[in-house]
Amino acid sequence: MMIVMKEGATEAQIAEVVERVESVGARAHVSRGEFVTVIGAVGSHDDEVAGLGLEDHPAVDRVVPILRPYKLASAQFRHGEPTVVEVEGRRIGGDHFAVIAGPCTVESRETMLEAARAMRDAGAHLLRGGAYKPRTSPYSFQGLGEAGLALLREAKEETGLPIVTEVMDVRDVERVVEVADVVQLGARNMQNYNLLTEVGRAGKPVLLKRGLAATLDELLMAAEYVLKEGNPNVILCERGIRTFESSYRFTLDIMAVPVLKELTHLPVIVDPSHAAGRRSLVEPLSLAAAAAGADGLIVEVHPNPDAAVCDGPQQLRAETFAEYLKRVEQAAELAGKVIQAGV
Amino acid sequence: MMIVMKEGATEAQIAEVVERVESVGARAHVSRGEFVTVIGAVGSHDDEVAGLGLEDHPAVDRVVPILRPYKLASAQFRHGEPTVVEVEGRRIGGDHFAVIAGPCTVESRETMLEAARAMRDAGAHLLRGGAYKPRTSPYSFQGLGEAGLALLREAKEETGLPIVTEVMDVRDVERVVEVADVVQLGARNMQNYNLLTEVGRAGKPVLLKRGLAATLDELLMAAEYVLKEGNPNVILCERGIRTFESSYRFTLDIMAVPVLKELTHLPVIVDPSHAAGRRSLVEPLSLAAAAAGADGLIVEVHPNPDAAVCDGPQQLRAETFAEYLKRVEQAAELAGKVIQAGV
Amino acid sequence: MMIVMKEGATEAQIAEVVERVESVGARAHVSRGEFVTVIGAVGSHDDEVAGLGLEDHPAVDRVVPILRPYKLASAQFRHGEPTVVEVEGRRIGGDHFAVIAGPCTVESRETMLEAARAMRDAGAHLLRGGAYKPRTSPYSFQGLGEAGLALLREAKEETGLPIVTEVMDVRDVERVVEVADVVQLGARNMQNYNLLTEVGRAGKPVLLKRGLAATLDELLMAAEYVLKEGNPNVILCERGIRTFESSYRFTLDIMAVPVLKELTHLPVIVDPSHAAGRRSLVEPLSLAAAAAGADGLIVEVHPNPDAAVCDGPQQLRAETFAEYLKRVEQAAELAGKVIQAGV
Amino acid sequence: MMIVMKEGATEAQIAEVVERVESVGARAHVSRGEFVTVIGAVGSHDDEVAGLGLEDHPAVDRVVPILRPYKLASAQFRHGEPTVVEVEGRRIGGDHFAVIAGPCTVESRETMLEAARAMRDAGAHLLRGGAYKPRTSPYSFQGLGEAGLALLREAKEETGLPIVTEVMDVRDVERVVEVADVVQLGARNMQNYNLLTEVGRAGKPVLLKRGLAATLDELLMAAEYVLKEGNPNVILCERGIRTFESSYRFTLDIMAVPVLKELTHLPVIVDPSHAAGRRSLVEPLSLAAAAAGADGLIVEVHPNPDAAVCDGPQQLRAETFAEYLKRVEQAAELAGKVIQAGV
Repeated sequence: MMIVMKEGATEAQIAEVVERVESVGARAHVSRGEFVTVIGAVGSHDDEVAGLGLEDHPAVDRVVPILRPYKLASAQFRHGEPTVVEVEGRRIGGDHFAVIAGPCTVESRETMLEAARAMRDAGAHLLRGGAYKPRTSPYSFQGLGEAGLALLREAKEETGLPIVTEVMDVRDVERVVEVADVVQLGARNMQNYNLLTEVGRAGKPVLLKRGLAATLDELLMAAEYVLKEGNPNVILCERGIRTFESSYRFTLDIMAVPVLKELTHLPVIVDPSHAAGRRSLVEPLSLAAAAAGADGLIVEVHPNPDAAVCDGPQQLRAETFAEYLKRVEQAAELAGKVIQAGV
Repeated sequence: MMIVMKEGATEAQIAEVVERVESVGARAHVSRGEFVTVIGAVGSHDDEVAGLGLEDHPAVDRVVPILRPYKLASAQFRHGEPTVVEVEGRRIGGDHFAVIAGPCTVESRETMLEAARAMRDAGAHLLRGGAYKPRTSPYSFQGLGEAGLALLREAKEETGLPIVTEVMDVRDVERVVEVADVVQLGARNMQNYNLLTEVGRAGKPVLLKRGLAATLDELLMAAEYVLKEGNPNVILCERGIRTFESSYRFTLDIMAVPVLKELTHLPVIVDPSHAAGRRSLVEPLSLAAAAAGADGLIVEVHPNPDAAVCDGPQQLRAETFAEYLKRVEQAAELAGKVIQAGV
Repeated sequence: MMIVMKEGATEAQIAEVVERVESVGARAHVSRGEFVTVIGAVGSHDDEVAGLGLEDHPAVDRVVPILRPYKLASAQFRHGEPTVVEVEGRRIGGDHFAVIAGPCTVESRETMLEAARAMRDAGAHLLRGGAYKPRTSPYSFQGLGEAGLALLREAKEETGLPIVTEVMDVRDVERVVEVADVVQLGARNMQNYNLLTEVGRAGKPVLLKRGLAATLDELLMAAEYVLKEGNPNVILCERGIRTFESSYRFTLDIMAVPVLKELTHLPVIVDPSHAAGRRSLVEPLSLAAAAAGADGLIVEVHPNPDAAVCDGPQQLRAETFAEYLKRVEQAAELAGKVIQAGV
Repeated sequence: MMIVMKEGATEAQIAEVVERVESVGARAHVSRGEFVTVIGAVGSHDDEVAGLGLEDHPAVDRVVPILRPYKLASAQFRHGEPTVVEVEGRRIGGDHFAVIAGPCTVESRETMLEAARAMRDAGAHLLRGGAYKPRTSPYSFQGLGEAGLALLREAKEETGLPIVTEVMDVRDVERVVEVADVVQLGARNMQNYNLLTEVGRAGKPVLLKRGLAATLDELLMAAEYVLKEGNPNVILCERGIRTFESSYRFTLDIMAVPVLKELTHLPVIVDPSHAAGRRSLVEPLSLAAAAAGADGLIVEVHPNPDAAVCDGPQQLRAETFAEYLKRVEQAAELAGKVIQAGV
């Protein structure tokens, strides 16, 4: 913590702040500038110093945190070495670019298997599909639940594609990890700390979506909840943030990709479908994400989006997916990625 | 749903959109203006029409939802009559203004009882205190849990003040409602739908905080999850939203108060402490909220904030609380409220 | 500037940063903490140090500015003494609360004089009215221009109310200051630096509106452009910022009021009309602003809003204005203001 | 305009709203749905209907504008045909991708000419450089002004590169257009309507930057101010918007690129330098913009950024620029652009 004093702070006021800093066990390091004095609180007592509320001291201008709040998630923790998450032979992170594709929701056996086959044939690396669906309205379809999980298992058996699916409730973690190769935590649950902890303990790789108003620091702190349970395989996912612009559903924060790659060793992927909300925007955003250095994409594709149970408008058509994938991989190559074969 | 066609849309294109609208069971109502044609999709098929993805049709400009997505939470549902939540004789809503006060966290028996007595003596109407604490960092204090609930029960026995406390996990709902007179759902859990449902079923009044990037429509949809379980006693709480301004922790959205009062029959209170993050801002924000017509406040007060386990800087000092309460009630009277006696 | 090094920065890297800091004439002050080293750049070379781009150095985590960028606008500049702007006997700032009221636009001689008389009779302190109107659309009414200024002059002659009116163009400053007692700079022109400078030179008090996405620091820097021309009479005005919430036109940032009062000696007023965009929200927001400690309000009132040339929906009705004013002043008294008589 | 009535609106209330709509000359078109009634106001009287303030009518839920407010800027105005701006043989728009590069500011004859030669040799299509600089602080360097314009003229004479430079003040338009081949309007001046009008009249192509909190509709309305003066050559520029995320200076809104391409016929370019604020982010953002379908980039490049007078940290190094340009053009080709030769 650095405590910046106001111009004109007296020696007595400086001494008072020093005393308060030392009262919680930190060392105070006073640095007198031409205009203002800055007091550094040295030692691992950031929480205690923050708790002093020095912002309200009449001679204090600001209190500035210095240490990043996350440890295990920071790039320094692995000395700049990227984490590569490996899921049944597919790699995400480092030089490896992977595409997770499939329908928004598991709707029926027929649609799910048709989608899975189409994804495998087109060369997707992993298969997505939601059995539990967080819905803004209590009157909307909430997912097939356990029956949906069974269909995902069947889709994997038939196609060999590893499964990515969401868990929303701590009581479902056990049954979801039986089927999922990667457990997804949605944007609305990014700060559901008990769920993060349970998923961390379950051991399977975790796909963690950024909350729609979460800072990058908060995203990394959420990852830290998983990592501290001994689970090193966290994939971060940018999926659009909320801004004043209402022409589109969310604003894809493309800068989060290169900035996260500097801050953390964890892989960073992008979800263009939820950001866009409309099919025609998905490809431009996908190319942008790959060109900006993302380690992969998670994208919604449906055999017949017009009949989809939910989010039809944003799902790509399965018949155009192979072409889309080729262009996306070219963009990833521009950013230095080696493309791996699909199944 | 209104489907706004682009200028220059042909008759064939209009017919095509009409056909798609009718294909999901809605009636299409075509309105030809001087410049553009608007197709109204009439009937209760909003989800299905939205699922058609007409935004991507080459002749469609925009698709505009017409119906508010919530029903039970809307002001019309009670024909303009406000809901008054009654908790052991204290009333919140309608003409009634109530102040919920107490420490951020239940820290120890001594502090909790001291705080409870101070709140009672100063005239607070309900007592707050967190046993389960959602914390950004996994390394921060996470609350006393069950032991904290026991201390809250003791505080109520001694002072008679009804208890407001937060639940974060569906597995804890049962034990929290045994102690809580009002169950709080935090901002980070506003869209934790399973938790909303469980809390709705538990039957106790619910204090529902607005997520830090939630629209008012989303807040009301979250309330709808509780209401549809047959629990009519939901208190909405504005606690600051996230904006570009980084001089303060959150931006208190004071306009949410009068606007929510128009949209819904539910009571609306304000949490100035979390918005401000600093003690010196709490009183101006409290007066503003009361003057703007809020039905109450939930405010953090601590016997010794400098030694508080968490959020000390934003907690009011207990010794100044009675004075603060007097001024806040004067502001509420200006907005037409009748002040009720504390315990 | 404080340069925060990454964990694991080597001595050689620290020395390199020190050398770069010193290369632009600043002194480097190295502070070694338990985890990270912080290098303070001491001396008045902030721009030069910022220009080094040390953020991109591989061993630098962040560069944190320490000095507030404004000088003349800071509370310290007047040692905590508030500026009271005096306009023909009316005072704004310190203990003084003033209400500026009148129609959005100068529309016609008849309406303007009727409005002016109504404002005087109700007890407003200053009269507002726009002759030059910044309009989003080139097809909207752009104001009466010089003819509007002449009507404002006439309104003042008849009622004695000092005039507040906007200038949008450097070429109009001279003719506007001939009529205006307070020159208004609109939100869209907050960073029109040449206009700020010209208005600063013209010498009349300036009402400076916060840009809709301007931080408080940027608002104070804009004020600094006026102040540095030797014009000390700047009134700051919060008028709503742009956020993700689209239920209302802008989000009134009520926290800006108490926070600005801490940062600066300049008076701070609130414009509830533009924030709200709807008449029914104007009174709750006005009461909130006064209760939060604002030094005044600028509010749109019209003799017949339904027939107003622009922004009719947000203008208060003149016949209810005296009642409104009474309640607003009671709220200001709650916040410690002494109410001054109108004309 | 569509006026959405509340559920339960009576026939008398509907008739009342119809009457008010008709009172301003519009035709009312009543559409009765299962739950709510919608009244369409047909005819070109949007401003008048908006001015009625029907939002405040007790039986009205919302008023929804239907027509896009811009006409000349809309894609329909040219029946889907893109505008290609041609500047001395370089083309921007349609299939043509162009890169505008050069230093942030014109600093000195030597640096400017060195930069210009480097840009020409690397294959840039146009040369940028600021003679008039809008600066947040009145104490920062404000540009060389007329002397800077003379140096830009010399740089063009030597290299043949067309010049892009900013104008900030209506009084400077005449002298800037003598030198500029493309006149730039900065983000802070996007809603400086008189400047837009003057620049529209001056006839030279205009590069119009999006304001940092401007919606796409507002950007297109600002373009409309230029277009309506008979100047068809407007290039739109996304340069980052302001959001809650404070890890970077601005958030590059990459979605604006494909969405603007749907809404308007005007070319859309991206400024990655101002969005990023840091050199290391400029290339990922540039690749993303090109891959998303932008018609070009405007990027800051300096022979010696460490010694630059302003914004050094975000300027690319001239010696790496040719390599950068090659990769950017590959990304543009992925998005379907034909690359044109530099000078």
